[in-house]
Amino acid sequence: MTAIDFTSFVDRLAAVSGETIMPFFRSALTVENKKAGGFDPVTAADRAAEEAMRSQIRKAFPEHGILGEEYGSERTDSEYVWVLDPIDGTKSFISGMVAWGTLIGLMRFGEPVYGMMHQPFTRERFSGDNGAALYRGPTGNRSLNVRPCTGLDDALLFTTSPLLMKETDRAQFRKVENKVRLSRYGGDCYAYCMLAAGQIDLIIETELKPYDIIALIPIIHGAGGIITTWEGTPAQGGGRVVVAGDKRVHEAALEILNRV
Amino acid sequence: MTAIDFTSFVDRLAAVSGETIMPFFRSALTVENKKAGGFDPVTAADRAAEEAMRSQIRKAFPEHGILGEEYGSERTDSEYVWVLDPIDGTKSFISGMVAWGTLIGLMRFGEPVYGMMHQPFTRERFSGDNGAALYRGPTGNRSLNVRPCTGLDDALLFTTSPLLMKETDRAQFRKVENKVRLSRYGGDCYAYCMLAAGQIDLIIETELKPYDIIALIPIIHGAGGIITTWEGTPAQGGGRVVVAGDKRVHEAALEILNRV
Repeated sequence: MTAIDFTSFVDRLAAVSGETIMPFFRSALTVENKKAGGFDPVTAADRAAEEAMRSQIRKAFPEHGILGEEYGSERTDSEYVWVLDPIDGTKSFISGMVAWGTLIGLMRFGEPVYGMMHQPFTRERFSGDNGAALYRGPTGNRSLNVRPCTGLDDALLFTTSPLLMKETDRAQFRKVENKVRLSRYGGDCYAYCMLAAGQIDLIIETELKPYDIIALIPIIHGAGGIITTWEGTPAQGGGRVVVAGDKRVHEAALEILNRV
Repeated sequence: MTAIDFTSFVDRLAAVSGETIMPFFRSALTVENKKAGGFDPVTAADRAAEEAMRSQIRKAFPEHGILGEEYGSERTDSEYVWVLDPIDGTKSFISGMVAWGTLIGLMRFGEPVYGMMHQPFTRERFSGDNGAALYRGPTGNRSLNVRPCTGLDDALLFTTSPLLMKETDRAQFRKVENKVRLSRYGGDCYAYCMLAAGQIDLIIETELKPYDIIALIPIIHGAGGIITTWEGTPAQGGGRVVVAGDKRVHEAALEILNRV
């Protein structure tokens, strides 16, 4: 729970970033290569949306800190720190697929207290404050709740792509994958929201940055799910993450991922 | 081109199937297991939508044939045969993701002459008649056109999942995957439409049924793309399929897939 209700302000950030991003979606894009050698596209949309959100935050809460994918960090020792990833899932975005989203997280005293995933093309907003999680979209509003799942053999697993994993991590991931009912790829941040919605049971990822995950934590917690690192510690630092709707699935996955 | 313009009738089929499917999307579903041992969910939505479309076809064109995923074939020796897959991408559907779609194809004298992919959640319709392809959606209407791509090293590749491939096919697929700029999974029928829209460059799949692919062929052709089997023959029988927006990418992919 936040000490102050930032809900309507986050809605404004989502609106501003969505308006900025949408003209770039499925149109000619200037894709830059951020990492020499790798393929990590950053679009003009990504930067423009982060600037737009930073400007809103500075105006409304000049004392707050900001950590963003594109423009780094400012005042991160503040009580409140905003964590922004305007286009999480840039590879989905450039492919025209809709699994990408805008992640807006709020930390207080270093803990994620509020988060939103906004998909401006489908006009969906998934938000949470650790205590509850909410869906708003074209089919109406409803609360988000994880579903029970007895174990891995009944679990629907998602990861964005095994290709993103280091070889040793991928080998451990494959051991879990071999145990589940169904394994699917291509989820990006949308999969986390589907886990909160009780559609899927397990997400395993690696190589995450803090801004990839912080906004999603209060949504997962608010829907009744569990999100940790592969070591079982808090996930807000990113890295290797395991998310489950049911404790039994989370425990079973952790056990296999850490098996030597 | 069709001898008769079935466009508005296909729109009616899409509307009817969409209305039938949507109440089941992201709600409690009765998922049955079609194949013992495998995980091939068929939903009540799938069956109800195919029944609804078959009923419309029988009423409007009693002399036409029908081939559907759920209820088999009738009068397939007719001049016109409708090919229906109400929920292509059932695994995306049960996961709550939006890469699934309704495929409605029309064959005349054994050749695919018109096709539509309808995504009722995003309210998007991708259609084609081999001569042209059209997008209609929340951001407006426009023609669909593939983009040029000089070769594999500049290509964005999609497949629904390498896990769906036989081991020998997967080994050949990996050889292509290692050459492309970016490889992504989880596309389902939505990826074919993104290729038609010029967002991606290459799709490689296996184990397709005729109803998985027939509706997509006139869309790909209409947008200027190439779609064949791995052997370079017409793709309407399903099986192993290669789709490209640019001839150079198609040729390069075929060459590697068939390399011993």
